[in-house]
Amino acid sequence: MAILERSDDGAVAVLTLNAPERLNALSDEMLAALAQALDALEADRTIRAVVLRGAGRAFCAGHDLRQMQAARQAPDGGTAAWRDLFDRCADVMQRLQRLPQPVIAQVHGVAVAAGCQLVASCDMAVAADSARFGVNGVNIGLFCSTPMVALTRAMPRKAAFEMLTTGRLISAVEAQALGLVNRVAREDELDEAALDLARQVAAKLSSAVRIGKRAFYEQAQMGLADAYAHTGAVMVANMQDTDTAEGIAAFLDKRDPRWEQ
Amino acid sequence: MAILERSDDGAVAVLTLNAPERLNALSDEMLAALAQALDALEADRTIRAVVLRGAGRAFCAGHDLRQMQAARQAPDGGTAAWRDLFDRCADVMQRLQRLPQPVIAQVHGVAVAAGCQLVASCDMAVAADSARFGVNGVNIGLFCSTPMVALTRAMPRKAAFEMLTTGRLISAVEAQALGLVNRVAREDELDEAALDLARQVAAKLSSAVRIGKRAFYEQAQMGLADAYAHTGAVMVANMQDTDTAEGIAAFLDKRDPRWEQ
Amino acid sequence: MAILERSDDGAVAVLTLNAPERLNALSDEMLAALAQALDALEADRTIRAVVLRGAGRAFCAGHDLRQMQAARQAPDGGTAAWRDLFDRCADVMQRLQRLPQPVIAQVHGVAVAAGCQLVASCDMAVAADSARFGVNGVNIGLFCSTPMVALTRAMPRKAAFEMLTTGRLISAVEAQALGLVNRVAREDELDEAALDLARQVAAKLSSAVRIGKRAFYEQAQMGLADAYAHTGAVMVANMQDTDTAEGIAAFLDKRDPRWEQ
Repeated sequence: MAILERSDDGAVAVLTLNAPERLNALSDEMLAALAQALDALEADRTIRAVVLRGAGRAFCAGHDLRQMQAARQAPDGGTAAWRDLFDRCADVMQRLQRLPQPVIAQVHGVAVAAGCQLVASCDMAVAADSARFGVNGVNIGLFCSTPMVALTRAMPRKAAFEMLTTGRLISAVEAQALGLVNRVAREDELDEAALDLARQVAAKLSSAVRIGKRAFYEQAQMGLADAYAHTGAVMVANMQDTDTAEGIAAFLDKRDPRWEQ
Repeated sequence: MAILERSDDGAVAVLTLNAPERLNALSDEMLAALAQALDALEADRTIRAVVLRGAGRAFCAGHDLRQMQAARQAPDGGTAAWRDLFDRCADVMQRLQRLPQPVIAQVHGVAVAAGCQLVASCDMAVAADSARFGVNGVNIGLFCSTPMVALTRAMPRKAAFEMLTTGRLISAVEAQALGLVNRVAREDELDEAALDLARQVAAKLSSAVRIGKRAFYEQAQMGLADAYAHTGAVMVANMQDTDTAEGIAAFLDKRDPRWEQ
Repeated sequence: MAILERSDDGAVAVLTLNAPERLNALSDEMLAALAQALDALEADRTIRAVVLRGAGRAFCAGHDLRQMQAARQAPDGGTAAWRDLFDRCADVMQRLQRLPQPVIAQVHGVAVAAGCQLVASCDMAVAADSARFGVNGVNIGLFCSTPMVALTRAMPRKAAFEMLTTGRLISAVEAQALGLVNRVAREDELDEAALDLARQVAAKLSSAVRIGKRAFYEQAQMGLADAYAHTGAVMVANMQDTDTAEGIAAFLDKRDPRWEQ
């Protein structure tokens, strides 16, 4: 079995973190497998949405602490290895947002530390009602500084600060109220709930979703006037798409569109 | 009947989008009428708050798709016309925030696509409990890229992403929980609920509200230190207002203020 | 009795605003005492968390309006005095975030105007269920322009706008739903609830909390890529801490850590 499994369900790719004995820790191997899988998906025009989930008892428990600790044996005490690790991890997190297809985290068990960062970095999240979320590195003396980059952009500031400094895990319902999770499902209906959301997105015109997802994160980092100038140009490009012309024509004619894509 | 009606109720101007047969679409004529009405309001010192609502079955269904489609007949396939359209639309949206008086969206029926952007761009919103909100352009292959500029600045990121990529409409109660709506009222009490909020604002010292609204959006785009430097200067200017001197004096004397404005 | 009392409970410092007859207004004396207390705490390695509360009927009613009004007698009509006041106030608010130790606002009665800013500027807040929050300067013609800097970074935009332009006070439960408050407690259990949260934070490795709190506010003002580069370097520094090495080792060995700090 590979450390990261991919199975496609029509236009939906399901990626499964598959190191259940390590609670799907983001080891060097897992990060490399994720980077490779995202590379492959980026070039795969048959896939229109992605679900990311974990095998075993949990979604993801964060970094691989044994590997991080082992790096202390290096002549520099681990510094170069850790710098490289956090670079690779941040790259995977940012790649999720750069990926043309929307990515849905499907969360069961726990999503903690960099595992919670993974949820926050996905475009959307569906959680089992029994799932729990935390950035609890502070409990072992390692503050979740990189996870908070994603977390503070997805939920209110004071709630994020509390999670980071107390290490408290929050429930799926609390995560939904805070904006970290889109939908909560019964555990035995979780697979279907995540797939259902993915299929809804996959049924849309993929060129429009791609152009829109890219603009979503670009405009979020701009001032208001720049954001409007940028997205106005994006809308013009979207209008020039022949499938969009057909989509609007079909709507005005009250019929279903016939899309090429 | 004009395409945009204005009726004043004391210091409150009520603007009514009045193209009910088109679900108050933001056609060229509607955008021009809105721009003109906002110009007039900006110079009108008798008006202290504005309510924006729609005639007929809905608040606003977004852009006028027939006009946008017709532009394809131009020699350039529509590019120049669409660029101009999105510029004019973004200008109206930003003008709502530049207008000295607070603007309250009064929403019934649906507020979708650029109609939802209009709600997000108003300073506050009051909705009928039966109202629904969506950025559903993706359903016809035209991602709501400009609406998301306003939407992502008013609600949590993951909820906005879901609305944009699934096209799902949300209820008034959900919109309130997400921060897009301030108050929800029964449909038969909606007019009064919006007017009530507008009158509360109109009863305040208008020079203070004007200086404050302007600073609100300015400081939101600044870093923390710059935001404090800027708003500190705004507070000093506010203190120099003779009506503010009277307002503070009256408060300290436990009496009602006698304001000139 | 000093205008600002400090009593330490183990590693938790409890600061009490102590001008109950003025509803703990942020007078020149109070701001000076707060600045001095924060200076002392910054250098105090025995303190790992801070609770900020108010004596008497309220947490804090904002600026000292009598002092502000008295400044009008100066040759310049008050301008220089007000500029200086808002500078000193903004400095105290920003110092709360620069302080190495987390600061928890413990709120009872009212927290209004600059008193509400004080809550928004603390890292976390615990409120009595009877507490109320507002930025109601607009009622006397003085818009809460500096308070809104902190408020708009802690809660959704439209809700903040409504509070600022209507002057309406919100309940503790509403403040919690909006993100301004972390926990709500019965009034007779408020002291314990705030202390409990402070003790949870104080029990963590203080070097990790310090490095994390600093990075929290730094990265919040950066773009995504810069935020990751910065926090990645922070994580590396955190890993180099010998107490963190012990914390991770203890976790992997399933035993309690033996920390030097």
